[in-house]
Amino acid sequence: MKIISSAKELSKLLQKQNKTRGYVPTMGALHEGHIALIKEARAQNEIVIVSIFVNPTQFLAGEDLDTYPRRDAADQKICELAGVDYLFRPQANELYFDDEIKIVAPNVRGYILEGTTRPGHFSGVLRVVMKLLNIVQPTNAYFGRKDAQQLHLIKLMKEHYFLPYTIVAVDTVRDSDGLALSSRNGYLSKEDRKMALKIPQSLYSASKMVSRGIVDVQVIQKEMLAVLEPLEIGYVAILSRDFKVIEQVELGNSIILVEALVGGTRLLDNIWL
Amino acid sequence: MKIISSAKELSKLLQKQNKTRGYVPTMGALHEGHIALIKEARAQNEIVIVSIFVNPTQFLAGEDLDTYPRRDAADQKICELAGVDYLFRPQANELYFDDEIKIVAPNVRGYILEGTTRPGHFSGVLRVVMKLLNIVQPTNAYFGRKDAQQLHLIKLMKEHYFLPYTIVAVDTVRDSDGLALSSRNGYLSKEDRKMALKIPQSLYSASKMVSRGIVDVQVIQKEMLAVLEPLEIGYVAILSRDFKVIEQVELGNSIILVEALVGGTRLLDNIWL
Repeated sequence: MKIISSAKELSKLLQKQNKTRGYVPTMGALHEGHIALIKEARAQNEIVIVSIFVNPTQFLAGEDLDTYPRRDAADQKICELAGVDYLFRPQANELYFDDEIKIVAPNVRGYILEGTTRPGHFSGVLRVVMKLLNIVQPTNAYFGRKDAQQLHLIKLMKEHYFLPYTIVAVDTVRDSDGLALSSRNGYLSKEDRKMALKIPQSLYSASKMVSRGIVDVQVIQKEMLAVLEPLEIGYVAILSRDFKVIEQVELGNSIILVEALVGGTRLLDNIWL
Repeated sequence: MKIISSAKELSKLLQKQNKTRGYVPTMGALHEGHIALIKEARAQNEIVIVSIFVNPTQFLAGEDLDTYPRRDAADQKICELAGVDYLFRPQANELYFDDEIKIVAPNVRGYILEGTTRPGHFSGVLRVVMKLLNIVQPTNAYFGRKDAQQLHLIKLMKEHYFLPYTIVAVDTVRDSDGLALSSRNGYLSKEDRKMALKIPQSLYSASKMVSRGIVDVQVIQKEMLAVLEPLEIGYVAILSRDFKVIEQVELGNSIILVEALVGGTRLLDNIWL
């Protein structure tokens, strides 16, 4: 595995090889969720590139940019074991410029759900993803379903700007207790963690309701809120897969998203129905 | 020459051919300036693509979007004679989307000069150019030096977003009287046109001063303003080639830009020193 910190060097190395490229952009602190992305990239492409970059522009003032977990040695080992060819660790000063052209998330779909409490977050995500995709020029780029709104917006960016890369969505990986894996789970105390399980439980309840034929969005939401009690809820949203408001769950085109605060940590989860 | 209005169809046709692509994006009303771009594209690439799209997002409310000259038949003939392979006439509804991700020109360099009287203009330019470049995926894309600020911002966009296309700058073409060619010159009366010549004359004066060793920006500006009298001036700016303020002209790294209003028409010109 080659470790590369220069975008120019990476581009050059990749251009020399006329091979399919699978790309997994990450912020490090790799866990089984990332490994699932890498495995899928490994299975579907000749070359696998993973990037680790804790992107400052997607953190708002007062968020956990400085304390976001950084585990360079462990991440490197994980990438090696997963068969990564290129580990790309870009430097902020090669990615960002003075007086820069910006990318701005859509007025509606960039500012609902996560965008409500984190206004501007998705603009930072899209900005760095556009840069990284163009540096790597992957055949396929892999993103987790856990960050469903992020995934949706990246797909929108592909569509709106005709990006010639295939965006591949990969299922959420869960711990044996059902909690969706996240680099921020490390912030949870043992007690928090128990409380956090109410999140996947609420999604499971919703899924069971739908399988019993209950599709009314308000009815499902009410039941989910009861399951989530007494967590501090960010949102419980039931939307179409293009993130538009619906009144009834339509199988194959719906997504249920939850954000809740547990011991000061913002946790996300969702289920695609 | 193939005329294509679907972005998808164009992409498909181009992908089938593993050939170098020269691309000239235009808003139509083609003149010798555009032909110079096409000729350069023709000389340097195996396939030449010209697009004609009067891009609504780069016109501000109250500007000449509706009256901007449209000369479909003449443009088509010009492209045929110039050896264009693909004339791409996209439809607005294939390029633009509801609740779209936006591109925003840089705070400083997007809002000085042209950006002062046309705030948001360059955001619209960059937005459509990003889309068009990704649709065509040219080896080389050609832009005129006459729209110097636009050219600079497109080069910035290539740099900031790692676009894998070469941006080629092509010299301004002038009429025999010295006026820089522009699709908007057709708005000028005979009398206006005479007045408009003060613009290239002011640049010529500046160039002569520099060749005599006068490099002080304020001295040159003062002389230019005298030559331009009594035109209504938008700006007379002497900048480094990366559009930063300078006090002295430095040969090989300077640009002098003029905008003046003649008979209600905004005219641009510049000289690279």
